[in-house]
Amino acid sequence: MSENWEEVQDTAAGWMNEAGKMLRQSLHESLKIDTKSNPNDLVTEMDFKIERFLTENIEKTYPHHKVMGEEEAGADIESTDGVLWIIDPIDGTTNFVHQKYNFAISVAVVQDGIGKVGLIYNVMQDEWFMAQEGKGAYLNGERLPQVTEVDLSEAVIGLNGRWLAREKRDGEQSLHTMVRKSRSVRNFGSAAIELAYLACGRLDSYISFRLAPWDYAAGLVLLKEVGAVVTNFNEKEPSMLKKDTILAARPKLHKQLLHYVHNHEGFEK
Amino acid sequence: MSENWEEVQDTAAGWMNEAGKMLRQSLHESLKIDTKSNPNDLVTEMDFKIERFLTENIEKTYPHHKVMGEEEAGADIESTDGVLWIIDPIDGTTNFVHQKYNFAISVAVVQDGIGKVGLIYNVMQDEWFMAQEGKGAYLNGERLPQVTEVDLSEAVIGLNGRWLAREKRDGEQSLHTMVRKSRSVRNFGSAAIELAYLACGRLDSYISFRLAPWDYAAGLVLLKEVGAVVTNFNEKEPSMLKKDTILAARPKLHKQLLHYVHNHEGFEK
Repeated sequence: MSENWEEVQDTAAGWMNEAGKMLRQSLHESLKIDTKSNPNDLVTEMDFKIERFLTENIEKTYPHHKVMGEEEAGADIESTDGVLWIIDPIDGTTNFVHQKYNFAISVAVVQDGIGKVGLIYNVMQDEWFMAQEGKGAYLNGERLPQVTEVDLSEAVIGLNGRWLAREKRDGEQSLHTMVRKSRSVRNFGSAAIELAYLACGRLDSYISFRLAPWDYAAGLVLLKEVGAVVTNFNEKEPSMLKKDTILAARPKLHKQLLHYVHNHEGFEK
Repeated sequence: MSENWEEVQDTAAGWMNEAGKMLRQSLHESLKIDTKSNPNDLVTEMDFKIERFLTENIEKTYPHHKVMGEEEAGADIESTDGVLWIIDPIDGTTNFVHQKYNFAISVAVVQDGIGKVGLIYNVMQDEWFMAQEGKGAYLNGERLPQVTEVDLSEAVIGLNGRWLAREKRDGEQSLHTMVRKSRSVRNFGSAAIELAYLACGRLDSYISFRLAPWDYAAGLVLLKEVGAVVTNFNEKEPSMLKKDTILAARPKLHKQLLHYVHNHEGFEK
């Protein structure tokens, strides 16, 4: 079935705008907070509420589409055939809880494994990152230029300090060496926001272990439109169905950084 | 001489608002960028322009005050006697250049070494953090509450990954151990913004080696007003005249964190 991706994008943005209002409103109320896989993996009632809100709207409007979300939706999905929505109701839940700032709603629409539409909404900064396959990427309606090249020595890299504190590897191929050779590192605590920042040039690379498709699916659509390269640490396309690593960067920098992350899966607990 | 600090604060905010406009305007033009002490210590023509703009206004309006700035002003100042303005025209110059985002103007007014007025203006997010001694701290006109306590295991710490990549120390007292015991770390690349984020609860601590008074003088005024504790790594008041280390945190967390930074001055180049 042929889809009108323009319409899909507009419809998704409308729901995300509503969801953003719900999230801003919730910051004035007390939140029910749980932990998931470990004590630092927070989830709130709002994660579930927003995911259900988006899922119900998608199912009503596009009954032939599938939905996979961070919290509940589509946990049994094993194939990317057809149209699949991949949604993260709150990317950066720790920021949502601790900072009430720097969190995003991330929505990707993928057809037969190919990213068609990607939207990342940074709720508190009211920044909208949107892209459609082949139509360019936009920040608040303004088209983002193609990325230019930058050497590692002048690159600002998005990287969570936890990986630096837990790395087993040392020596010339370590992340520590990479950071020392870079201009600087940054860490905002939301994969979606950091991928969007790479798309608009606020970062030159973003590196992370242990992400899931809802963390990066929308970012991938944006980054493809501005000519950035995104793979996992073994130079393969990131999975749309299971957890993966992410190395996203301007093209030549991506090649330089592969040296530091290739086969890099180990870190201390 | 008795000063009207309310008026000083309002006047400073007016100049900073003008300076913010100049900075936003400059982002549409091409910038002249130099390096200072090392290749990653950037300075632009705008750092000088804004510092001169603020200094000239201060000298015209308050001829009996002294001014110390990051770039030029007051390099010969050796005493905090009298009224001293401590200004950073662009805190986060690397962000200014690379991100066009996440940079701040920081202005403190200190009398006989005591912080009287502190202002941090996050230019692109249009967030104003202001405090007067004994009058509370404000974000965009809204009074910030006193900080509450949080244990390290639930704390989000502002810390630049460069220190993790360069640390010589290892074992139980290392920053690596501290990060592993924390909930998470963040890194925005501007000391002024990160101290302001601690004041409004977006961070629970901020730790940095090698800062200068203009990086933290305004932050100190804010943090005192919300009950946070700021010292150098040896539990002394940070210097208002020379470079120092900074450990800023909610009170009990500050005591916990001292364990990891006490006497900690060494890291690789």
